Order: sequence, then C-alpha cells, then structure tokens
Amino acid sequence: MAGPLRRRLPPLPLLLLAAAGLRAAERSGGSSSAMEELATEKEAEESHRQDSVSLLTFILLLTLTILTIWLFKHRRVRFLHETGLAMIYGLIVGVILRYGTPSTSGHDKPFSCSQEDRPFTTLLVNVSGKFFEYTLKGEISPGKIHNVEQNDMLRKVTFDPEVFFNILLPPIIFHAGYSLKKRHFFRNLGSILAYAFLGTAVSCFIIGNLMYGVVKLMKLVGQLSDKFYYTDCLLFGAIISATDPVTVLAIFNELHADVDLYALLFGESVLNDAVAIVLSSSIVAYQPTGENTHAFDAAAFFKSVGVFLGIFSGSFMMGAVTGVVTALVTKFTKLHCFPLLETALFFLMSWSTFLLAEACGFTGVVAVLFCGITQAHYTYNNLSVESRSRTKQLFEVLHFLAENFIFSYMGLALFTFQKHIFSPVFIIGAFVAIFLGRAAHIYPLSFLLNLGRRHKISWSFQHMMMFSGLRGAMAFALAIRDTATYSHQMMFSTTLLIVFFTVWIVGGGTTPMLSWLNIRVGVDPDQDPPPTNDSFQVLQGDGQDSARRNRTKQESAWLFRLWYSFDHNYLKPILTHSGPPLTTTLPSWCGLIARCLTSPQVYDNQEQLREEDSDFILNDGDLTVTYGDTTITANGSSGPHTATTNLDSRRTKSSSEEALERDLGAADHEVTSRGTRLVFPLEYNA
Amino acid sequence: MAGPLRRRLPPLPLLLLAAAGLRAAERSGGSSSAMEELATEKEAEESHRQDSVSLLTFILLLTLTILTIWLFKHRRVRFLHETGLAMIYGLIVGVILRYGTPSTSGHDKPFSCSQEDRPFTTLLVNVSGKFFEYTLKGEISPGKIHNVEQNDMLRKVTFDPEVFFNILLPPIIFHAGYSLKKRHFFRNLGSILAYAFLGTAVSCFIIGNLMYGVVKLMKLVGQLSDKFYYTDCLLFGAIISATDPVTVLAIFNELHADVDLYALLFGESVLNDAVAIVLSSSIVAYQPTGENTHAFDAAAFFKSVGVFLGIFSGSFMMGAVTGVVTALVTKFTKLHCFPLLETALFFLMSWSTFLLAEACGFTGVVAVLFCGITQAHYTYNNLSVESRSRTKQLFEVLHFLAENFIFSYMGLALFTFQKHIFSPVFIIGAFVAIFLGRAAHIYPLSFLLNLGRRHKISWSFQHMMMFSGLRGAMAFALAIRDTATYSHQMMFSTTLLIVFFTVWIVGGGTTPMLSWLNIRVGVDPDQDPPPTNDSFQVLQGDGQDSARRNRTKQESAWLFRLWYSFDHNYLKPILTHSGPPLTTTLPSWCGLIARCLTSPQVYDNQEQLREEDSDFILNDGDLTVTYGDTTITANGSSGPHTATTNLDSRRTKSSSEEALERDLGAADHEVTSRGTRLVFPLEYNA
Repeated sequence: MAGPLRRRLPPLPLLLLAAAGLRAAERSGGSSSAMEELATEKEAEESHRQDSVSLLTFILLLTLTILTIWLFKHRRVRFLHETGLAMIYGLIVGVILRYGTPSTSGHDKPFSCSQEDRPFTTLLVNVSGKFFEYTLKGEISPGKIHNVEQNDMLRKVTFDPEVFFNILLPPIIFHAGYSLKKRHFFRNLGSILAYAFLGTAVSCFIIGNLMYGVVKLMKLVGQLSDKFYYTDCLLFGAIISATDPVTVLAIFNELHADVDLYALLFGESVLNDAVAIVLSSSIVAYQPTGENTHAFDAAAFFKSVGVFLGIFSGSFMMGAVTGVVTALVTKFTKLHCFPLLETALFFLMSWSTFLLAEACGFTGVVAVLFCGITQAHYTYNNLSVESRSRTKQLFEVLHFLAENFIFSYMGLALFTFQKHIFSPVFIIGAFVAIFLGRAAHIYPLSFLLNLGRRHKISWSFQHMMMFSGLRGAMAFALAIRDTATYSHQMMFSTTLLIVFFTVWIVGGGTTPMLSWLNIRVGVDPDQDPPPTNDSFQVLQGDGQDSARRNRTKQESAWLFRLWYSFDHNYLKPILTHSGPPLTTTLPSWCGLIARCLTSPQVYDNQEQLREEDSDFILNDGDLTVTYGDTTITANGSSGPHTATTNLDSRRTKSSSEEALERDLGAADHEVTSRGTRLVFPLEYNA
Repeated sequence: MAGPLRRRLPPLPLLLLAAAGLRAAERSGGSSSAMEELATEKEAEESHRQDSVSLLTFILLLTLTILTIWLFKHRRVRFLHETGLAMIYGLIVGVILRYGTPSTSGHDKPFSCSQEDRPFTTLLVNVSGKFFEYTLKGEISPGKIHNVEQNDMLRKVTFDPEVFFNILLPPIIFHAGYSLKKRHFFRNLGSILAYAFLGTAVSCFIIGNLMYGVVKLMKLVGQLSDKFYYTDCLLFGAIISATDPVTVLAIFNELHADVDLYALLFGESVLNDAVAIVLSSSIVAYQPTGENTHAFDAAAFFKSVGVFLGIFSGSFMMGAVTGVVTALVTKFTKLHCFPLLETALFFLMSWSTFLLAEACGFTGVVAVLFCGITQAHYTYNNLSVESRSRTKQLFEVLHFLAENFIFSYMGLALFTFQKHIFSPVFIIGAFVAIFLGRAAHIYPLSFLLNLGRRHKISWSFQHMMMFSGLRGAMAFALAIRDTATYSHQMMFSTTLLIVFFTVWIVGGGTTPMLSWLNIRVGVDPDQDPPPTNDSFQVLQGDGQDSARRNRTKQESAWLFRLWYSFDHNYLKPILTHSGPPLTTTLPSWCGLIARCLTSPQVYDNQEQLREEDSDFILNDGDLTVTYGDTTITANGSSGPHTATTNLDSRRTKSSSEEALERDLGAADHEVTSRGTRLVFPLEYNA
C-alpha cells in the first residue's frame, strides 16, 4: 500500500514504546532541584490521574451500554439497536465533556523554538544543563495553535485514528471471517463477489461523481472556503461505500430471517469493507501531482487499478498463507493435547497475519479477513474441542468490546472532535448520493445476477438490501484516518452524520421493513429442531435426498464445483484430519508423499466417507461432516471428548445424548448448528 | 501511592493517544513541498515497516516458544521449564539484534535547542513557517546523548517499563487471584499472611542491609563509581523479595504435589508480589531529602510504614469494592441470559478496578489481585455457565501470553538494554543476600507458625519453600521501572541475572528436589476419582463424616470461623444466589430488606442447605456447594443447563451422567474438581 496514507499506518510497537510519553524528567538525585522536581512530579501525577479517569470514562460508558443492552434484550425492545445505544451514550458523555469540564490550560504552555530545516522525529532540548528527549507528534495548522492546550480532557479522550485501524478493527474483521456461515456464503459466492467488487466500485464512482457535482455547486454558491479535488470526492465515495454488517445482521440473527438474504448481506458487507479499504488507498495513490488535478489521466487510472489489484491479491495471499501454515502446524504437531498452547498459537498466528501484511506493504485488515476464513475452513478442524470453543469465545468477546467501543467513540467524537466542518449542502448532497449510489448498484446488479441464478433474488430481497446499506465502523475508521485538510474534515463530519442517521434509522426500521416486505422470519434452518434419530437413518440413502442433491449440484457453477473437488480431494486431506486419504486421490507415483501427508485418522473415517461421498462436493458438506462428528463436544467445550473423532459415534448415540444435544443446539453456536444440520438433512424437504 | 515512582505510572490512554508519535508532517496539500514530503513519507513508511517487523519478532519468538513447550511437554522433558525456554529464545534473538543488525542512524539526528526554565511536556517547533508538536519523552543523561539514535532496531524492541506494569502484569495477577484454589488457601491463610507480610518485610530488610554492606565494601575497594544510598539498598531488597509463583507451581500442578505445600507457596508468592510493590513504593516515598541520606530517621520510617498501610488497605478496598459491585450487578440483573454481555461486563469491571485504583492514587496491580479473589468468591457464583468457562479461559489465555512475553522479553533485555552495569561483587553479594534473606524468613517463621499449627509445616516443606524462592516477572517489572540512575541500573542488571539463574536452576531442579525431599507427588485430592453414587448417599449423615468435620473445625482459628459465619450468613446471601435466605439470618426487624435482597433461588435450596448446614462454616464448603450443583454444566459450558440450579438434581443423577461427569472432571478444571470433591467428601478418609 503506497501513498500518503501509508505514513499514517500502525505504529504498533510505538503504542507500547510511547508510553514513555508521560515520563517526565527523570529523578535527578540531587537536592538542589527538589522544588522544581516536585512541580514536575505533581504535574505528571495529575496527568496520569487524568489518563486513568478518561479511560475509566470509556469503561463506564461501555458498562452502561452493556447494562442497557441487557435491559433492551430482556424487554425485547427493537426500535433501537445496541450500537445505536452506544452512540447515544457516547453523545451524552461528549456533550458533558465539551460543555461541562473547565478548560484546564495554563500549566502546559507550549514552547516555541525555530528551526529552518524539515522537522526531526526526535528532539533534544537542553534545559539548564539537563537534556530532555522529545518526539514528534504531528503538524498543527497555524490557526489551531491556541487550541492545542485548550482542554486537556477533550484531548485525552481523542484517540489517534490508527487505534481504530490497528487495534479495534482487526478483531472485528477476523471475527467476521472466522464466524462466516460458510455453506450459505459459498452457495451465493458469485453474487456476493459481484456485489462486493462491482457494486462497491460502481457505488464509489457514482457517489464520487455526484459529490463532485455538489462541490462544484458549493463553489458556485460560495460555500466552499478551501480546495476540494476530484480525488477527494472519489475518496469520499470509497469511504462511504463500506457498508456495515453489524446492526442489520444482529437483528436478522435474532429474528431468524431468511438465510440466503443473510448470506448475501453479510458476504457483501464483509467483503466490501475490504474493497473499500483497498479502493481508498489506491485512490490516494492516484494523487494529483500537478495543478490539473481533476483531469482524467488514463495512465494514472490504470496505475490505480493495478495498485488495487496488487494490494488486494497480496493481502488475500498473505491471509491465506498464514491460515494454511497454522493449519499445517496444528495438524502435524499434537498441540491439541494442550488446548491453551493451541489457542495461544492460533491467536498469535492470526495476529501475525496483520503485522506481516503491514510489514510487506499490504493491508493488514484485509489479510486478517481472509486469514479468518482460512482458519475457519481448515485450522478449525484440527483444533481440540476446547480450543474450538475457546478461540470462538475469545474473538467474540474481543469483537463485542471493540465494536461497542467504536460506536460509543463515534457518539463522543461528534462533540469532542475539534475540527468539524458541517456544510448543509454537502451533507444533503451526500445523503442523496449514497441513496442513488446504492440503488445504482443493487438493482442493476441483481437484474444481471438473476439472469444466471436459479434461486432468483426477489424484489423484496433487493429492497431489503437497498434498505440495509447502513454505514458503520469501517466508514468511520476510513474517514477519521486523515483529517488534516479542509476537504477531509468536511468528509469526516458528513460521514459521522451518515453513520448516525443510518444506524438509528436502519437499525430501528429493520424489523418493520422485514414484515412490510413479507420476508420469511423465524425460518433459519440452522435452528430447526432436528428430527428423531430414526428418521435420519431412514433418510440416509433416500430417493428424496438424492433428488435434493442433484438440484443443489446444478445450482453450483462449474468453477465452484472444480474448486470444491480440488479442496476436498487435496487441500482438506493435506491441511486437516478430514477428507479422503491422499493415497486414493493423488496419482500412484506420489504414494510416499501421500502417505506422509495423510493423517492416520483419515483412514478410520474412510469407510464412512465413501458412503457419503456424493454429499461432499455439494454445499460444503465435507466441512459439515467434520463438524458433525464432534457435535456434542463442540458444545461440551471443556470435556475430554477427543476420543469421539469417529463419525460412527453419532449413529450409536443413545437417545439421552440426543436429547442433550438438542438442548445444547438450541443454545446457539452456529458451528454446532451446522453440524446438526448435516446430520439431519431434512430441512430441504421442509 | 506517592513519590517519584508515581510520575512513571500508567499513561494508558497515552498508549493509545501516542500512536500519533509516528504521524510525521501532515499532508500539506500544495505541490511545492512535494519532494520534502516524499522524503518524510518514505521515512515514515520505513519506520512503520520496522515497527511491524519488531512486533513480528516478538510474535515469532512466542510462536517458537509455544511449539517448543509443546515438544517438551510431549516428550515429558522437565529439566527446563517453558519460562526458562522463553528466556533462552529471547537471549538468542537479543544477541542477533545486538550484533547482527547494522546501526541505522543518520536520518534521525537530534536537534538541540536551549531553554532556561524547567522542561515543558509539550513543545511547539516552528519549521519554516509550519508548526509541529512534540511531547516530552524523558531526560537523557549527558553521557548517553550519542546513544540515542545509535540503533533503531534496538530502540524499537525496547519497551517502556510501564508496559509491564500496566498491560502485562494486570492479567497475570488477576488470573492468579481468580484461579486461587480457595479451600486450601483459606485453610492456610494465617501462615500465608505471615510469610507474605512478615516474611517479605524481613527478607527486604535483611537483603537491604546485607547489600548496604556490600556497597560499603565496593566503595572501599573502589568499585563504585557513583552514589548508592541506603534507600537504594532497601529498594533492592523490596524488588528482589518478590518471589514468582509461575514456574514452581506449574511443575507442582503437573506432578500433583502436596496441596498444602502448593497452597503455601502459591499464597505466599501471590501476596508477596503485592507486598513487594507497595513496599518498594513506600521506600521510594521515604526518600533522602537532605545530605544525610543513610541515617535512620524515625519520623520518615513511620511515614513509610503509614504509606505502606495506607496504600495496601486502599488498594485492597478498591479491589474488593469493584468485586462486590460486579457481584451485585450480576445478581440483580438477569444478565446471565446473555453470556457475552456478562463476560464483557466482567472483563470491563475487572479492568476498571485497575484504573480506579490508579486514579485514586493506589496501586492498580494490588487492587486487581483482590478484585480477582472477590470475583472468584462471589461474582463467579452468579455467572452463567458459559460465562464461567469463558472468563476463566479468557484470562488464562491473556495470562499465558503476557507471562511468556515477559520472559522472552527478559531474555532479550540482557543484550538489547543499553544501560547495563554488571558489577561482580554486587552480583555475588546479591546472590548470597537473597539466599540468607530467604533462609532468615522461612525457617524462623515456620518455627513460630508450627507452634500454633495443628498440621505442622514439616522440615521437607520448609526446605522446599526455601528452594522455591525463585524470582520472576514481578522482580523484573519492579527493577525495570526506574533505570535512570547508576544504582538503579546496577540493580536492574543484577535482578536480571538473579531471575535467569533462579528460573533455570529452580525450574529445572524442582522435580529432583521433590523426590529428594520425599514430598508426596501425585496425590492432589482434586484429582481423586470420585466414589460411586451409592457410597455418597450412605456417607451423608455418617459418623466418620462428622468426625472429620469436627477435626476440620478445630483447625480453623476463631477469627476465620467468625469471618466464615459472617460471610456465609450475610455476604453470600446478599451478593450471590447461594447461602441461607437472609430472612432467617437477619434479625426480624429487617424483614423487608432481607426479602428484597434474598434471591428466589435461595428458598429452593433452603431445604437442602439446612441438611448440610454444618458443613458450611468449615473449609469453604458453602462455595463448593454452589459449584457442586452445576458440576456437569460447568464442564458442558455452552449448554443451557441453568435449570439445574437445584441441589437435588445431583441425587437423581443417572449413572450415565455420573460417568460422563467423572470423565469431564478428570480433564481438569479445578472449579469442577472442587465441586466434585464436595459432592463426595470421601477424600478425608483416604
């Protein structure tokens, strides 16, 4: 990832190193400077106390949010979602901080000293013979100098944008990848990719151009007081095209809305975050170099496209590779005997994806997304039962905390951010543009996709997708990334308002909208009560069943069938303990390698696998089988049920265990549900 | 907590804020400064890449450590413990970084400018008309100025000491409190408190005085090149008196060594960390103000003692209060229906303890320890089954990562820390002093304690405790906290060597030592196979059983019996869903309040409770009952078994469930084991 955005990228170790920021003058040891030292000490103590208090503010905010979320869930209030709630609390605290705290300037007067060269990153200052080290924090626009020390508290609650990109977003995005409902996702992969790539590009381009019109208009009316380039408009288009999966999907999950619609929305919003990040960086790379900043430059445009493709594929590879490495490590060591080590390894490897991508100049967040998908697809199968639940739970908690933090911070930022520029024309223009931009990609794309799809995307689905395009954490993070110039400040303020508006309106309106559009609710097959044990065995080789299979087969495009058979025959057996033995799928001259790579467990499963083989290439059945055989244990988390790795066990289940399993399944855990589903493939007939 | 240490305390939000540190000059927008901007941009990009690489180094180090730990555990290698291993890997990487990387100075020349006043925390520098903000990083001793920019990579892998105190230690300490094996801990509470408080104070005093002798000797020989005060020696005594629970206890756990010895060692090392922190801060508060720095000043001494007591009790209260608040919140809301919310709340409340204590001027780490104990004692009972396992697992992972990070960092620091002062005389003196200091507190204290104890602390236990006094993370964190002066640098280098030596020798020698001292191994009652269901019912009101009770009763001191009955009759019913109803324990005139505060579940349990009431006051049985009734579910984690809150259920358990439970119990989970243990109180006869 090149361009000026680059230099704002994650100083992660700096986060740690820079803790030194507060370390005031070191203890000088003598007694002559005792008074002076005491003063500095008191100041530092005060500053430290303020730091603690400001973090406490956030924690209490989150605590309050959690308690209110509980109250809302308890009372089944649906007109306001938890993220909307977090924002409201943030707003309130922001107002209090803004207008309720005295401006505590005075003791912290800035010192001016001139220097003719470009700024150094380290500064040594000689104060009455002692040397002090200073580090560069950033440029301050001349008009803001008097603001620097205006309000300590406001400054303390204003985080650096990079915190969002490097600390808060990775767990959210990883969790999205890791908890992907793969079956429905892959069934709709073509459409999802179309929406995410084509759709986001179209939306970005349309919004960018419309906003350029708005900017022109503003210039005519005299509402624009500084430069606003065409690339800035396009950047705004990219920023605001990132739709958020959070709110709508939480409601969908709660209401058990249609799974295909869920998959489409989820897939689109997750991938389009990645697309929007990469898009915005490549737009920044395609920067005005001369004065003719808004002329169309074909070479620069193709360079931008090249950068986009390069960063995207690089990040994708990075994520996939670390996922595969983790899968290999967990397969070929017996790490699963020590779940704690395994979880720690999993966590570290996933985090290193982010750093590795950043170190190589790719986009960490995108790499983490694909790493999550790969980990869920391969590594998850090799993990011990305890690690499976532990990793899921760990990332779930991190995701929950990070997300709510971002949303309450958004509320706070509306009042504490000191460089807002609200332009009514721009804001109204932006709302119209995002509406048109979304309409211009949902409806035409759906029409085109419906030409090739067997399961058409119905009008009500299209309207729902149109409605669900709310903007959230990613748009905010992208917008706050660079707020140095006039245009970027205006974009940030507008983005904030759009996020507020869409989260509150869309979050509150989803339930009425679903019923108004007559979209099936409460039919999530993942949650269907499984039929009794008998019906499963009867259905195994049934006619109905094979008819279903053929139907599903025809649905999949040849490309995906090809991928599935490759994945099933080679990747799964190499990377996990499941799938057919490589000795049967590889040509005979690779016998030795095949024998080395195939895990012994596979042979145990082979008998079983042959029976159900036809199931595999379709609808991601192979994955589900692997889940299926540990259904109880995936719930029973900490129990030492690793012995139950044989598929046969589920046939010999006693009915009491069956009942237990049903109970547990109802408790949620999509993974389990997935398992339960394959075991009882009745849903297709329902 | 007062004194100069104060000002070095946690700039936590700064950690986040300071991410800005890398943000070089903001985009200026014009085209005139394009070249200059490009240069800054490239630099920032390079610096960011280095940041990523240095963090990657640590992650790969940890990954390598995890894989090797697995190999060691797999092969049952015990001569080197995982923490020792992490240090060795750290050492190797440190050597590579030190001697393998070129010194990349040059582009980062420090700029000197004079200022006559004391240093400001913020500095504005005017560079050709643009303003840049700088923040104070700390003082640099004049001799070290040329070192500042010497090696970027070395500087990048050198974390700020506060990271250890504010990010890495809290999860470790909280986990220690949260996973305390309460029964054995409370049975030995008197001895543990004596070792922790008296023992640490004695050890600190003896080591401090011996070291003062060594320093005098060094001055005579001419080996001392700068000041070394008496208070510095005492501080060294406090730092080095913090014994580490990690290594020995991990081995004890693995070998199932004697539980009472385990409880003594664990309790001592956990509490003595807290004592050492507070002790070192109060020694710093008792600072030389005039020139007669090593004269004994009674007023200052009592001030120090007052500070010690104030900080300790304040931190204790802070931790207990947030624990109690969390317990009340989780009791009076139905948060347990939403385990994710509950876990998040639990996590946030526990973290806020740390911040609250820091904001009030107490010691966050100590507060977090007592918060952990309170959370485990009260809040844990109110949590949903899923949250119980989730919180345990979450903190276990955090603890594991933080601990291994610290130990590999210690290895790294031996070569990358640039201010080492190794003095052979001081080092040898220190080894002798810690040996004598430990001997002087273990043997006399044990003798005194044995006068009052029924279960005497045997000679072999005393030798084992003497041997197990290894120094670890806490000593390191305390020593690295202030390395500004000559004496502190020498103390830091010596501490590092002592940690290395004790971790390697003691870690490797524990197993031989246990067998040499004939200490029982493999007898952890927590892991005893439970007897069959029948024997349990027969034993219920048995004579043998009540004999056991009387014996245990006599063991507890009256103070603890008082506390137990207060805890059982009032605190437990108020804070949790267990214990007898308040309507029966409170006087009748509090009837209304009692009815409000008692949870409805208690009445369901009452019948059951009355039967076993005599069991409660002894050996923390009340707690165990509450665990006992959810034994399966505590294992089955995610299952919705909350309906099983009636104790009677365990009587009607089918034998298949019984078998399941036994399986699960064997998998570890001390909580479960505790439950299993009370349910079958046979162990005492074994």
